[in-house]
Amino acid sequence: MLEGITTTRAIRRFVEEPVPPEVLRAILFAATRGPSGSNRQPFRFLVLTDGPKARAAKAILGEGARRMWDVKRSGERYDRGSGAVSNSRKARVADAMQHLVDRFEHIPAVVLACFLSAGEVGNEGSAVWPACQNLLLAARALGYGGVLTGFHFVVKDQLQAVLGLPDTASFVATIPLGKPAGHHGPVRRRPLGELVFQDSWGNAPAWAVDPPGTEFTSGRTPVPALSSDRLAEIEKSIR
Amino acid sequence: MLEGITTTRAIRRFVEEPVPPEVLRAILFAATRGPSGSNRQPFRFLVLTDGPKARAAKAILGEGARRMWDVKRSGERYDRGSGAVSNSRKARVADAMQHLVDRFEHIPAVVLACFLSAGEVGNEGSAVWPACQNLLLAARALGYGGVLTGFHFVVKDQLQAVLGLPDTASFVATIPLGKPAGHHGPVRRRPLGELVFQDSWGNAPAWAVDPPGTEFTSGRTPVPALSSDRLAEIEKSIR
Repeated sequence: MLEGITTTRAIRRFVEEPVPPEVLRAILFAATRGPSGSNRQPFRFLVLTDGPKARAAKAILGEGARRMWDVKRSGERYDRGSGAVSNSRKARVADAMQHLVDRFEHIPAVVLACFLSAGEVGNEGSAVWPACQNLLLAARALGYGGVLTGFHFVVKDQLQAVLGLPDTASFVATIPLGKPAGHHGPVRRRPLGELVFQDSWGNAPAWAVDPPGTEFTSGRTPVPALSSDRLAEIEKSIR
Repeated sequence: MLEGITTTRAIRRFVEEPVPPEVLRAILFAATRGPSGSNRQPFRFLVLTDGPKARAAKAILGEGARRMWDVKRSGERYDRGSGAVSNSRKARVADAMQHLVDRFEHIPAVVLACFLSAGEVGNEGSAVWPACQNLLLAARALGYGGVLTGFHFVVKDQLQAVLGLPDTASFVATIPLGKPAGHHGPVRRRPLGELVFQDSWGNAPAWAVDPPGTEFTSGRTPVPALSSDRLAEIEKSIR
């Protein structure tokens, strides 16, 4: 179990074959075992495979995904610096993202993780995201994989209409899902002592040591996510 | 792995013995393997065990926890209806919560999951919560357990001061952690067909069937979480 958790990668390239119903059942069963305050279970999962509405929704999401990635690819200079060097880490990430958005309509299953409000205030993430992580881990356990994305951000209204979401429901994550064309494996993170403290902020405990062979990300401050202003601009350009 | 994911319960009663450093390392290593947008890793974990600042922080959190639970216990009528029946589900949940808050200062390890802002807007949950779920699952894999709480909600300022958090950091979850005095096991959720749809909202797929023996929660609409107004009132009463 520990090995599975620590080697679950974001999967962005899929074998283009359907996810069998018994696999979907096991993955979604695991997702819905996620915790929520007072066991309210305000998460709902909408699985898009190949029905007519699913195809329409995938096309809308694909359009949103391509627009968002276009803006991010140029805005975050994915093709400059090391990104211009063939097979560099940056270039490989950009290639995988480009593949994901170009083939969006062919992704075997796209899961929309939704929040269903029951009068409580905000804090929706606290219940939907742990269930999403269960989903990704269960997929990995069964030889599948996926990635958390926000591709619905810029096409919310169209999606809501096509899929018949009630006003009390909202999209939290868009999760492409399928059999990996690549493979899972160890992930790169900052050294453990930069992420984990004991007793007070910034105090790395002696035990916060990575296992031998762990690979790290660079220490540079990463680029901020697309701002809500920028997302609103993209959304307007699609309508 | 699937069995572990689907039988991870909220643990609120702990054996009062320290969590060994090698267990903390494995659990926090797993937590920090969680995904984040562009691998920004904006999560930080502050582990409170028995140092002087940790004890002070646990006392502050304990006070917040007891005030919040007092309000919730009466406001949500935990001692009325079936809650008044000894050993009913409702009464057992209330007992476990009362035990958790009464013994808060004795919890072996309290993990504060934090969000470190790097200029991106909102959406902090999307990176911190999946890591928290990894933490709970890794704990379960090693014979430990924990529970996601928001006990920091009403004591944020005092905690921030004691623990030396920078202005760019904020608390997302308070996670009591230790060896369970009880045990993990299957959890109760609504029937899968109420939580999972295919093609369009409300359309339960044929495969959304629970395994034989699955136990369900009642279908009643659960009580909303404490409102932000109510939380602010409790916060004011503590200062």
